[in-house]
Amino acid sequence: MTTACALIIGDEILTGKVHDENSHTLAKFLFDQGVDLQKIVVIGDTVAEIATHVRALSSQYDYVFTSGGIGPTHDDRTYEGVAEAFGLELRYDDETLDRLHAYMRDRHPDQPVNTARKKMALLPTPCRIFWTDGIWVPGVIVNNVYVLPGIPILFFHMLSGLKGHLQGTPKSRQRVFTQKTEGEIADCLSAIQDAHPHTAIGSYPKLDHPDYRVMVTVEGVDAAEVAHVAKEIEDQIANIAPARATR
Amino acid sequence: MTTACALIIGDEILTGKVHDENSHTLAKFLFDQGVDLQKIVVIGDTVAEIATHVRALSSQYDYVFTSGGIGPTHDDRTYEGVAEAFGLELRYDDETLDRLHAYMRDRHPDQPVNTARKKMALLPTPCRIFWTDGIWVPGVIVNNVYVLPGIPILFFHMLSGLKGHLQGTPKSRQRVFTQKTEGEIADCLSAIQDAHPHTAIGSYPKLDHPDYRVMVTVEGVDAAEVAHVAKEIEDQIANIAPARATR
Repeated sequence: MTTACALIIGDEILTGKVHDENSHTLAKFLFDQGVDLQKIVVIGDTVAEIATHVRALSSQYDYVFTSGGIGPTHDDRTYEGVAEAFGLELRYDDETLDRLHAYMRDRHPDQPVNTARKKMALLPTPCRIFWTDGIWVPGVIVNNVYVLPGIPILFFHMLSGLKGHLQGTPKSRQRVFTQKTEGEIADCLSAIQDAHPHTAIGSYPKLDHPDYRVMVTVEGVDAAEVAHVAKEIEDQIANIAPARATR
Repeated sequence: MTTACALIIGDEILTGKVHDENSHTLAKFLFDQGVDLQKIVVIGDTVAEIATHVRALSSQYDYVFTSGGIGPTHDDRTYEGVAEAFGLELRYDDETLDRLHAYMRDRHPDQPVNTARKKMALLPTPCRIFWTDGIWVPGVIVNNVYVLPGIPILFFHMLSGLKGHLQGTPKSRQRVFTQKTEGEIADCLSAIQDAHPHTAIGSYPKLDHPDYRVMVTVEGVDAAEVAHVAKEIEDQIANIAPARATR
């Protein structure tokens, strides 16, 4: 099993100004890539906290993905934090600087490439860099830590560029929907879960959905077993005696 | 300063089936109540992990709010985890059982109050309980840990019932919007931030928004200082020489 953790960086999420989308984008992506996302952590924009978390999570998980804090302003501290986590220096990356200059010539020819903007090329060094079509900003990899931007559309596209590059074991997933309540199906699910410890059965009630009361999911690396378990759940749920109207 | 941490519990978030809404609901609520949300952690449905996190976070923050894992099915393990965190037993709470029975009589008179359903009344003991109009499910408080449901509408209403009950110091917030880019305003923001360490200045770029390129926010407990700093930012941004078109 390959494991991962998300480290979402930004005061704006903790103060409720922004609803983080990137952790959900990452969760869907990693499931498809067969990497087990085991934790999501959201912290503020302080170098010490970023460094502490990056260092600890990097040693606990196969992959760490960060989001946010790589822009030009004073509250963008992620590269600093990652550098501090691993005792690295921040150095200008020439290729990133070239791309920044090209971007500015093309999009903001009237504006200087000032120190604030150049901060976006001041990277923890050494690092690996990957590029994404249509985006001048680098994807930065330090050890097992993937440093990505906070802007959702950029995060999504840069992450998508990593498709197929992670070492994962994809899982199969099946869904079963029912109009029965969780209280009615709980015992049956519990028994099936005990009998199939290599699959993960989840039960998710939905209030006021027109089509179902509970969505049950089955996940596991063995697609045949997942399909078998889902069928068993479907059959057993169907066989639970229908509730009798007593009034 | 009063601090808090959110502990969002649910495999469904980590596997990308569900986009967590509760941490955002909590972030907005705590900002309004003047409590500093300093971290959000999302973990899966395992008792050991819930217990470890609850214990650690409870000692690090003034308040901990959990979401999820209090239903009747096998993957609902939060009460167990909280009990284990503090070395407590799980015991049936009589008032909760009464309310469960009343709810079932009213809404599902044809269904039994089985062991699975009664699990929702099997609480870490001792605990404090609070009730929310129209919801039979208890809000459970163990030490400084508030245990809330994962279903967003229930989470929202039960949290709202805590309005005014937390010990916080509300902050003031002002927003400044600009068509200038982050690269243009970064130096000015940085200088103003350095001059006003008791306020927090945040800079949030928005790609392709029709009305602005960057939203700047100022937050702090001193409303007059926040207003002053916001005005200073507005004035200084306006005075940055407009970019000259060079082609």
